[in-house]
Amino acid sequence: MERHFHEQLQQLKETLLIMASAVETSIAKAIDALVERDSKLANEVIQMDGKINDLEVSIDEQCLKLLATQQPMAVDLRFITSAMKINNDLERMGDHSVNIAELAIILNELGSLKPLIDIPRMARLAQSMVKDSLDSFIDGQVEKARDVCIRDDEVDQLDDQLFRELLTYMMNDSQTIARALDLILISKNLERIADLSTNIAEEVIFIYRAKMIKHHKATLDLEDIRPRS
Amino acid sequence: MERHFHEQLQQLKETLLIMASAVETSIAKAIDALVERDSKLANEVIQMDGKINDLEVSIDEQCLKLLATQQPMAVDLRFITSAMKINNDLERMGDHSVNIAELAIILNELGSLKPLIDIPRMARLAQSMVKDSLDSFIDGQVEKARDVCIRDDEVDQLDDQLFRELLTYMMNDSQTIARALDLILISKNLERIADLSTNIAEEVIFIYRAKMIKHHKATLDLEDIRPRS
Repeated sequence: MERHFHEQLQQLKETLLIMASAVETSIAKAIDALVERDSKLANEVIQMDGKINDLEVSIDEQCLKLLATQQPMAVDLRFITSAMKINNDLERMGDHSVNIAELAIILNELGSLKPLIDIPRMARLAQSMVKDSLDSFIDGQVEKARDVCIRDDEVDQLDDQLFRELLTYMMNDSQTIARALDLILISKNLERIADLSTNIAEEVIFIYRAKMIKHHKATLDLEDIRPRS
Repeated sequence: MERHFHEQLQQLKETLLIMASAVETSIAKAIDALVERDSKLANEVIQMDGKINDLEVSIDEQCLKLLATQQPMAVDLRFITSAMKINNDLERMGDHSVNIAELAIILNELGSLKPLIDIPRMARLAQSMVKDSLDSFIDGQVEKARDVCIRDDEVDQLDDQLFRELLTYMMNDSQTIARALDLILISKNLERIADLSTNIAEEVIFIYRAKMIKHHKATLDLEDIRPRS
């Protein structure tokens, strides 16, 4: 029974890795589609969303089966319930990635007019948060998870700054309105992806430190996540 | 033990009811703040978000405790794991409500210029979806949940239509840009609230019919959610 449990848990971790990798690929392709003005790549992002949705259902089923047939306790129980939430967060990231891909296709049709201002920088930041939150989940690296939570503010600031800049473009030249509006929406999608990475990082801290830091980011310091002796 | 379990489950349901009611109030106030141009009300929405966040943490803890100390099976297990997801959906609805309230405050400062087009209609639709999804969850009314899933397309269409209308305003009169942009963002937040209601409705169908309809809305018919004999 015990061995069977660990095999099932291992299988769950492997499926989560496949899901995480699919979502990371989806985000990377959506951003490349935007920066490289490559609508073919954007369409690949839209196509692969079905696979991500299927993986979400499969992971949910594995978690429920583990809860129903085993009686996981402590860290294992937290791992499984958090896996259900992280799974959900990953699927939503995939949806935001599809939104970005769809907006990239529209922008590519509108023709090149302006550089993308700080969008590529914001995208790189969000991508690094996705990567680090997933790495921290897989390897139980709580310090890395904490670092993700802190970086979220930087993305929020970039989102605000981009909003103001793009609003100014729109006011000064009505020819830029449709394009600037799409970039604002892309920025909002990146901000949500960063937010969801933060959710994952908070779950990681919860799994490995049994400490709920949600909604208390402002007071977070290293003391909160130090291993319990 | 058995009796103790049902008491704890009952308590969880009651806390979920308080959470649901707080989120419904928050959304209603945010929309009133926008329609009535009442920034005081908008500030109340921002203030009450802390309470919603606290409730989310409390519900999560209750669910984990139930999973750890009891061994819930079948419908009870699905109820508890779905409660964790619904809890998360509700907290996110609260966040969208805060976004709407913050945008309402900015709009109120900009002064009245245009009617709100179809925003109030979209808001009523989203609110009715929130209410029906929560009613269906509490009373196990699967048909009502199914109806929520179907209405989601209507909200998406309204969101698209509002986007096009507001874009036209912006193009025709640069004086409307800041305001129209805020209304577009409000529309996106309403669309997300409707989406989250749909998530809840999908969970309800899963709890009471043990049928996963997620990502298969297009093929959903009454057959899928008929009680199993």
